[in-house]
Formats: sequence, C-alpha cells, structure tokens
Amino acid sequence: MTNSPNTPLLDTVKDPADLRKLAPSQLRQLADDVRAEMIDAVSQTGGHLGAGLGVVELTVALHYVFDTPRDRLIWDVGHQAYPHKILTGRRDRMRTIRQGGGLSGFTRRGESEYDPFGAAHSSTSISAALGFAVANTLSGAPGKAIAVIGDGAMSAGMAYEAMNNAEAAGNRLIVILNDNDMSIAPPVGGLSAYLARLISSREFLGLRDLAKRLARKMPRPLHSGLRKADEFARGMATGGTLFEELGFYYVGPVDGHNLDHLLPVLENVRDAAEGPCLIHVVTKKGKGYAPAEASADKYHGVTKFDVITGAMAPAKSGPPSYTGVFAKALMAEAERDDKIVAITAAMPSGTGLDKFQQKFPKRSFDVGIAEQHAVTFAAGLAAQGYRPFCAIYSTFLQRAYDQVVHDVAIQNLPVRFAIDRAGLVGADGSTHAGSFDVTYLATLPNMVVMAAADEVELVHMVHTAALHDSGPIAFRYPRGNGIGLALPETPERLEIGKGRVVREGRKVAILTLGTRLGEALKAADELDAKGLSTTVADLRFAKPLDEALIRKLAATHDVVVTVEEGAIGGLGAHVLTMASDTGLLDAGLKIRTMRLPDVFQEQDSPEKQYAEAGLDAAGIVKTVLSALRHNSTNVTEGARA
Amino acid sequence: MTNSPNTPLLDTVKDPADLRKLAPSQLRQLADDVRAEMIDAVSQTGGHLGAGLGVVELTVALHYVFDTPRDRLIWDVGHQAYPHKILTGRRDRMRTIRQGGGLSGFTRRGESEYDPFGAAHSSTSISAALGFAVANTLSGAPGKAIAVIGDGAMSAGMAYEAMNNAEAAGNRLIVILNDNDMSIAPPVGGLSAYLARLISSREFLGLRDLAKRLARKMPRPLHSGLRKADEFARGMATGGTLFEELGFYYVGPVDGHNLDHLLPVLENVRDAAEGPCLIHVVTKKGKGYAPAEASADKYHGVTKFDVITGAMAPAKSGPPSYTGVFAKALMAEAERDDKIVAITAAMPSGTGLDKFQQKFPKRSFDVGIAEQHAVTFAAGLAAQGYRPFCAIYSTFLQRAYDQVVHDVAIQNLPVRFAIDRAGLVGADGSTHAGSFDVTYLATLPNMVVMAAADEVELVHMVHTAALHDSGPIAFRYPRGNGIGLALPETPERLEIGKGRVVREGRKVAILTLGTRLGEALKAADELDAKGLSTTVADLRFAKPLDEALIRKLAATHDVVVTVEEGAIGGLGAHVLTMASDTGLLDAGLKIRTMRLPDVFQEQDSPEKQYAEAGLDAAGIVKTVLSALRHNSTNVTEGARA
Repeated sequence: MTNSPNTPLLDTVKDPADLRKLAPSQLRQLADDVRAEMIDAVSQTGGHLGAGLGVVELTVALHYVFDTPRDRLIWDVGHQAYPHKILTGRRDRMRTIRQGGGLSGFTRRGESEYDPFGAAHSSTSISAALGFAVANTLSGAPGKAIAVIGDGAMSAGMAYEAMNNAEAAGNRLIVILNDNDMSIAPPVGGLSAYLARLISSREFLGLRDLAKRLARKMPRPLHSGLRKADEFARGMATGGTLFEELGFYYVGPVDGHNLDHLLPVLENVRDAAEGPCLIHVVTKKGKGYAPAEASADKYHGVTKFDVITGAMAPAKSGPPSYTGVFAKALMAEAERDDKIVAITAAMPSGTGLDKFQQKFPKRSFDVGIAEQHAVTFAAGLAAQGYRPFCAIYSTFLQRAYDQVVHDVAIQNLPVRFAIDRAGLVGADGSTHAGSFDVTYLATLPNMVVMAAADEVELVHMVHTAALHDSGPIAFRYPRGNGIGLALPETPERLEIGKGRVVREGRKVAILTLGTRLGEALKAADELDAKGLSTTVADLRFAKPLDEALIRKLAATHDVVVTVEEGAIGGLGAHVLTMASDTGLLDAGLKIRTMRLPDVFQEQDSPEKQYAEAGLDAAGIVKTVLSALRHNSTNVTEGARA
Repeated sequence: MTNSPNTPLLDTVKDPADLRKLAPSQLRQLADDVRAEMIDAVSQTGGHLGAGLGVVELTVALHYVFDTPRDRLIWDVGHQAYPHKILTGRRDRMRTIRQGGGLSGFTRRGESEYDPFGAAHSSTSISAALGFAVANTLSGAPGKAIAVIGDGAMSAGMAYEAMNNAEAAGNRLIVILNDNDMSIAPPVGGLSAYLARLISSREFLGLRDLAKRLARKMPRPLHSGLRKADEFARGMATGGTLFEELGFYYVGPVDGHNLDHLLPVLENVRDAAEGPCLIHVVTKKGKGYAPAEASADKYHGVTKFDVITGAMAPAKSGPPSYTGVFAKALMAEAERDDKIVAITAAMPSGTGLDKFQQKFPKRSFDVGIAEQHAVTFAAGLAAQGYRPFCAIYSTFLQRAYDQVVHDVAIQNLPVRFAIDRAGLVGADGSTHAGSFDVTYLATLPNMVVMAAADEVELVHMVHTAALHDSGPIAFRYPRGNGIGLALPETPERLEIGKGRVVREGRKVAILTLGTRLGEALKAADELDAKGLSTTVADLRFAKPLDEALIRKLAATHDVVVTVEEGAIGGLGAHVLTMASDTGLLDAGLKIRTMRLPDVFQEQDSPEKQYAEAGLDAAGIVKTVLSALRHNSTNVTEGARA
C-alpha cells in the first residue's frame, strides 16, 4: 500500500495481550495509531467510519482493562467494531472488509475468538452478555461480560427487556452506554431526551467526582481515603435514576475520549462492582477525523474516500434507487390522499422517508429502533381511518412479526408494509438479507403479498397499496438501483392476485416474483436460441396467487419454473401447494421452484450472491434444461411405472 | 338461570351512556352489581376471573369519566375486560364466553364498538392507543385514547418502545398502569421491583396529595385554591421518575378500588393534562371474592366453580398433559446433564417449568414477558457452553422471530425451542393458535424442526434436543392431554431427519407431522375397510425431511397425503418442494397437502376446530377419496394430454 499511515506503536501490537503490556501512558499514542489505520483502511474499502472513530479510546481502554477474550466483549450492532478488529489480530485483513471472502462489517463468531457473539441487528448485546455472565456464574468460571451499546440502540424494546433482567448477571455484567447522540438517524423518543438532559445538566464528571460516585456502591474507591466522599456523593445531582431503577449502578457521564478517566473507571467497576453496572460514556461519532466530524451523518457509512480531503468517490450515476422510487411514489400518493401517513423505525434515509418527512412533517413518524411499536402504532392509525405505510427493511420486519400477525393480520387492518432490502443485499451479508419475508407473510390469512419486478411496477404497487383498504398488504423491493425505466405519470392500480405475461412462448414457462424478471428474460432469450420457446410471466403476487394464469401456463407448456428472491416456503411453495390441491400434479407436471439456497449466504456483491444461489439467467437456463432432460422413471426407480 | 345474582342497578344500565346518567354516589352499588354478575357468569363458564375482579371499579370509573366509544379504551391482553363487556352491551352473552360461537375471552373489534382494538398478546395497548391518539390529532377529531396495562405487561419491550414514543400523542394519551403485582406468574425483573418500591415507600396518596401532584403540571387542579400546593408537591418524595423520564406525567399510586379517588383523578387528567399521563393504579387481583383473594393465583384462569364455596369443578382425569410430560422429561435430562438450563417468558406454570424451577432453581430463568430477550439470552448461554431450553408457546415465539433468525440460526447456536400450544388451541381462539411456527422456522437454514405425534415421542424429542449440540433445534407439541401411552423409562435419541412408518399398506400413504397421527390412523382403518390399504408414516421432522422415506412411499403408493397442524408453507410445502426439486412430480404424483385453512379460525373446542379445518379422520378420508377419484385431465383441460 502506498502512503500507509505511520503507526509505530500499533505495529508492535498484534493482539490484546500485547496491548496489555503497554504502559497506560502509551495508550494515547496507540489510540492515535488505530485511528490513523482505520481511516486509511476505510478510505480504501468504504464501510462504516464514524461509529468506529468514536470508540477508538474506548476500545483501547476495554482491551487494556479487561482480560479479553476470556472477558466477553460484545459490541452492539457492530458498525463500531473496526478498531476492535484492528486490535484483535485482523489488521492485515481490514482492507477486505465487507467484500466477498473478506472480513465482515460486523462482529462475527467465526472470525475471531474476540467476537463472542455476532452482531448486526441492533440492541442484542445486553441479552447476549447476560447469557455469558449467567453461564459463568453457573459454572464458576471467571470472566465478565461487557456490552457496548449506543444510545440509539437503547430505544429498542429488546434492550429494555434485557436491562430489566440484569440482576441475574450480578456483578459480571457491565453495560457501556456509548452515547453519541446519533445512531444512523438523529435519535428520537423519551429516552433520548432523557440522556440529553443527563448530560446537559452538568459537565462531565471529573476524576474526583467519578470516584465519589463509584464509592457510593463499591468497596474499593479509586483512591483510598476518598471513601468518605460517599456522603457528599449522595448529595450530588445524580441523574441516572432510570437505569438505577432498573437495577443498575449508574456511573457517568464519562468523557469517552479521555483515557485518564476511562481507565480508572473501568478498573474500578471491574474489580469492585457489587452488581450490574452501567457506565454512561459520551463520545463523538467521527472523532479525530475532521471531515467526518464536520459531516451531518459523521460518515456513518461511506464509499471510498480521499484521506486528506475527505472527498468520497462519487456515487455511480445510474437509474434511481428502488428506495428513491418508493419515496417519490409515496409522496405522490400522499399529495392526493391526506389519510396517508408514513412510519419508519430509525431509518428515514435508508427507507427514503426523509424526503417524505420534509414534505409532510406531521404525517411522518420516526419511532426509533422500535419495529414492534411501529407496526402496532400503524395498526392503531389504520383502525382510526388512516392509511399507514410502514417502511421497514425485510430483515428488520422480523422484529415485528408477532405484531404483523396479532395486531394487523388477525384484525385485518389495512396497514401497508413497504419492505425494502428484500432478497440478497450484498456487503451487509446474511444478517441483513431479506430472505424470509414472503414465507413468513404469505402464510398469514388476510395478507396480500406483492413483489416489484422493476421500478415501474413499484410505482404501481405503491398506488395499489394506497387504495387497498380491505386488509393488510405488503410489497417488497430490493436494495439498489432500478433498471432505468421511465416512471409512469399515472400509476396503475393492479388487480389483486393477477399476474402478467411479459413474454409469450410455447414450451417453457418461467414464473417470476420480483426483480429476477430481468434474468428470466435473459434466460428466455437463451432458451429461445436453443429452440425452446419460452414464456415469462411476472406473477406480481405471492398471495393471492394468479391461479388461472398458472394453471393455463402449466397446461400449455412442457416445463414450469418459478423464480423468487426468497427462501423456501414462499412463491414456489404456494404454487406447488395450489397445484397439488387442484390435482394439477396428478398426471405429471415438470415443475421446478428456484429460490434462495438453504444456507446463510456470505457477503459479496448481490450479483455474485445471486449467481452463487443459481438465481441468474445461467442458473435458470440450467434448471430448465435439467428438468427437460430429467427422466422421471429413473428417479422413482421405476416403481410407479 | 337459577339463583342469578340480584343486580338491580346494573339491570338498568345497558351501555355506558346509561352508566353516565347515574350519580357518582351510585357507582359503588353499580360496581358491586358488576362484580356479582361477573362471578356468577364465570362460575358457569370458566374463564378469567381474578383479573376482571381487580378492575371492576376502574372499569366503572373509566366509562363514567370518558366518552366511550368515542374515547378509545384499550385493555391490554384483555383477560381483565369481562366487567367492560358486561357494561358495554354484552351482558346477555357473558355465559357464552370462550365457547364456540360465543363471546371472545379477549377484547375484539368485531364484537363491539367499545372494543377499538383487539387484545390477547400482552403489551400492545400503548402502541395502539398512540395510533388512535395521533390519528385524532391529525384529523382534528375529538377523543382521547386510554390504555390500561398491567405491571407484568410493562416488562415487555414493546410497551417500553411505545412509552418512548408517547410524546407523539400529546395529551390525548392516558396510560393506566394497573399494578396488581401479579400477571399470570409473580412478576420478575427490575421494573417490578421498582414499582414495588414506589408503592411501599409511602401510603396511597390521599385526595389532597393527588391534587397536589396533579397541580404540578396541570392548570386545573382538583379544587381551586390548591394550586399553590404545587410548591409543596415538588418537595414530596415523588418517585415515578422512570415514567417521567420517558416523557409521561406520573400520577399515583392511586387506590384502584376507591371510586372517590379514581373519579377526580381521571376527570382532572381528562380535562387538564398537557401531555401524556400515566396513572399508577393499585388493585388487587380477585378483589371482592374471598376464594379468589385467598388463592395463590387469584383465580387467574378458572374452570366452572361453585360461587358460594369457590370450589372448582375437578379437572377431568386423564392422561398427563403434553406440558407436564415435557417438564418431567426435561427434568430427567437435567438430572443427567448439569449444562441444561430452562428459560420461560412469564409462563412458568403454562410451560411446566414451575416444576423445573423448584428442582433446579439456579438453572431456571423466568425473564418476564420478554420473549426477545429470552431467545438471545439463551443464545448467549449456548455460546458459553450451556444447553438452554427456551419453552415458549408457538404464538408467543412470534415475538422473538428476529432473535431466532439473527442470534440463533445465523450463528448456528444450539438453542432448544420447546414450542408448546402448537396448532389450534381451543377457547383462546385465533390470537393464541400456534399455526405458523413450522413455516417460519423450517424456512431457516441450520434449523431442525420436529413435532411430537404423542407423549412418548415428546419424551424422545426432549432427549434428542438435549443431545443436539450442532445447531438450533425446535420441537412442537399441542395444548391438552396426551393419548395415554406409558412413558418410556429410557428415552430414545431420534436420528435427525428420519421418520417412521407406523402402519404399513400399499395404496394410500398418509404422512403426518405431529398429533394428527391419531386421526390418520383412524382414517387408515376406514380406508382399509374400503379396500384401500393404507400406510401411515410419522415424519417427525419438518426439517430436515426424510427424503428417502417420502420418495419410497411416493414410488410405491397411488396417493400421498401430508397432514399437519399448521398453516401453508410448512410440512406439505417442504415435501412438495423436495418432490419437484427431484423430479418426483414429473411423471405424475397424486399428492395432497392437508393443513390449516387460510382463515383465522374462531374459538371452539380443538376437536371442533380441527374438524372445521378438515384435519380429522373424516377429512383425511375425504381428501384421499377425492384425490383417487380426481381425473387430472379435466383439471388441465386436456391440454397436456
């Protein structure tokens, strides 16, 4: 690498054991080296920058004070774990991050013994840490569990459920609340306002004040002789009561970039805590890199950039993203219909609702990382006559599955689910893949499930959903850009449960759901060239199915192949079930269902991931040819003949 | 009805409008009448008694003070809504409750305009109320939204997510925290301890004290002239800060059985609140009925009973319940293996883990109504070498779907899911049916999904799960009693992905998953009698499938029928998918998949529900005969011939 940063101290630290040999006075330099290394690495790969820069000192301090990996360090979400990776033996692979075959952008058990629990979805760390802590308590093994969780992640109910159970962990549990007042979007809600009050109500605690607070509950204060400060401490405006009332001992706020404060606090909590502790650390996202500090989103997720100027590589020009098309279409609907409201769970920019929010601030709701609440809140709005669009990534809608079932589907309330990031998502890997939504939604009575084949279809589906007042309806669309179609001036209302034939043929019928339509059309051209005249139909609906169309195509073609961007139990399963219900299989039907494989696929470009899954044109052709060649009597060992 | 209670005042009250014509001094009598009526009704039907008895005065007060149904009154869970039903036009149907065709045991939108939002699963009320409140704010319509939520329900993350967003509702949202210190099980966790401290730290507030607290934030105190008490109020030991810190104005604790206190507090909050309010009401579950007050579980759920003595109808003697068999089997495993731990989410008695808890108190964890935390906590325990069994009802596991995917399946951690109440559940109706678990679990890579055909199989599956360290494994079993088999002294370890042939035949093959095996065997006898020699196989595993067995049976029988106690996307879908993948359908296969219908089925006895679903012996016979008669060329309109 040219112009690698000069990192003399970091060069001597291969793992946390090396780190722990340093003198405390050397840690400032080490942190600076880590920061320089991280900026350089991410400038070459893109990835998550701001979060990691905010916790460089905290990462150094945690590995210095705690005996990792025996002590279990669990980073919530994992965006902020790049410095941790640099310090735990993965420095040489940092420039592969988020790439096929490279390091994950999150923590991951398979990657390092220093990653005891994989992260990616928010707010899991305290529950996991409790598991480790309780296990060690039961077995009598030494070891603490430390969860590092952001203030945004604290808005999720899961974090609260875990805090409510903290007592079970005793003094083995330490929660570091990394308060940078900014998750992906500005934080929302009562807890966030509370944390802001905690911080603004006073300066950071000095070392002496911290000692006083620690002395309140712990037998070993920072400096002996300070024990009697206890009485004074009790008189302080303590704040922190919310956590104390849930059973934690609260320490803070502590300046998360000041190692002289971090180290003694962590040591004291490590050695002397009598129960679960929460240390409230205040950090700055993007800290130490001027372009990040100056940027509104603190370089949360970045493309490759120039280290000196901070200038990012320009986004590839291309067709608008599906996210953008959705947002624009929803705004157009909302212009026409003032009952339309939009809900996001802490992803206004990821879902495109930031634009909606600017235009319709009163009809836009960011509920924080709170998908469960988002869905039932939407159900309440629908019950009172509104037309809510819940825009949630496929993978995050899993968080609200019970609310979709219990509050929406059973009550048949017209909540609209705009499911972004459906199918494989590329660099974020398996934790963010939207693989299961068609399966888990289409099994529900009352639910309508659509998938957009392209951006024009998405516009139609937004319109169709807006007008669908008779029950819940979901439409899914992928990460990334559309295929460059001109968007319609006037959207169409699709007939519920009706597909469309996109290409007519006679021998092979390919039935698609979603954006595999493009690959299916390519496959059809190849098959035609081989003399296999191919029909391609976009079913549009996984539920209800276009039974008439499917039956007609099955009756008039030699082989039927379904293609979807989802796991088993979705479109293909529904087509097969309908076919068996109606006797369509009795006399023989060459039918194959193409879907995501039964593995959690690794990160790569979406194109490579789909190729690996066999869901590209080549895979479709191969499946068709294989089905046509297939001699069924061999399969059944002749026994049916 | 003989010996109906004497309820002269209630007899004049047909709906809340009548109630609001009464003088405040009459409400005590009305409450007494409601209580007598409720005890009498439940004594005849069984159902939930203790919760309703605890909120009789609160129910009367809420309908008196608020303009229901315009003001939206949302009862969390709904067990406590019997008095509400009596007062909202459903008194004449109270003796049909929880029976086929009768009133629901929960609130339900279709049942009354006074039920604006259906309940059953815990902790949804604040989110729904926020939806109503925000809708009215947007439209400018009058109307408050009042959520009544128990202290146990407050342990769920969803309630916290909603509280964190309360600001959006402004003063239209009122949360009544009904603190009876007892959900179904004794409460657990930091919040519960906090509420207990709030109450024990002082006596109930008197009317004057309540006025002071109200005066702190509201322009209209109870009595003019008390406004200046404000300064004194600020000096009180206020408590309630946890809710205040989340953005609520906290009032309480208030004696929930004292109408003289409840009425002015509710009126003041209704008229003068400037933001969301939480009123902390303390009630006694079972209040006013001595046998319930004296009982440990306060008659939470009861069978029919004698009103005078409280004696309940003896439980029908019969084979042990599946729940009991599971608990006993797990205890036997835990005796052998000290790494086995058990987790319940507030259902120790419902899951049978109360017995486990008595025997292994340190290895048993009740995390409160917190399924999300339960699953990730279990994942942490598994990652540290323990063998956690998460015992959660099928319908409640929906709450933790993302944690099952993200924390367990992706990481391939050996968490054992003991899924009780799988399939249809009878009186609790559609909200509690366990219809979707096979579909939503079997679509996940790494997951093993079993279903027990009878209680002996359940014992084997507990053992198999205990020994399965290579990844997650789930086993489901129904509500109710086993079929009376002798339990094995030594459990068998089942081979993963292998089914068993229970009955050999030649023409018809019935493949079952779960306890429909009994009906399948009956159907086989009937079919045999018709000359259709029938094989019955218990597949045991929905994932991985016993492909060899299925292929063999398909090859050697004229018709194959799968039968499962779950919705589309489960066993049948997996069998069909495997069959199409391998070309088994190419030359024709008469195959039918029997499953739950695509509707949310109403409450009834499980037997009637399954008959309605066609999943009884008669339904199976009918499906087989229909398949055999079916002329496939008609279906496909001859076009394939």
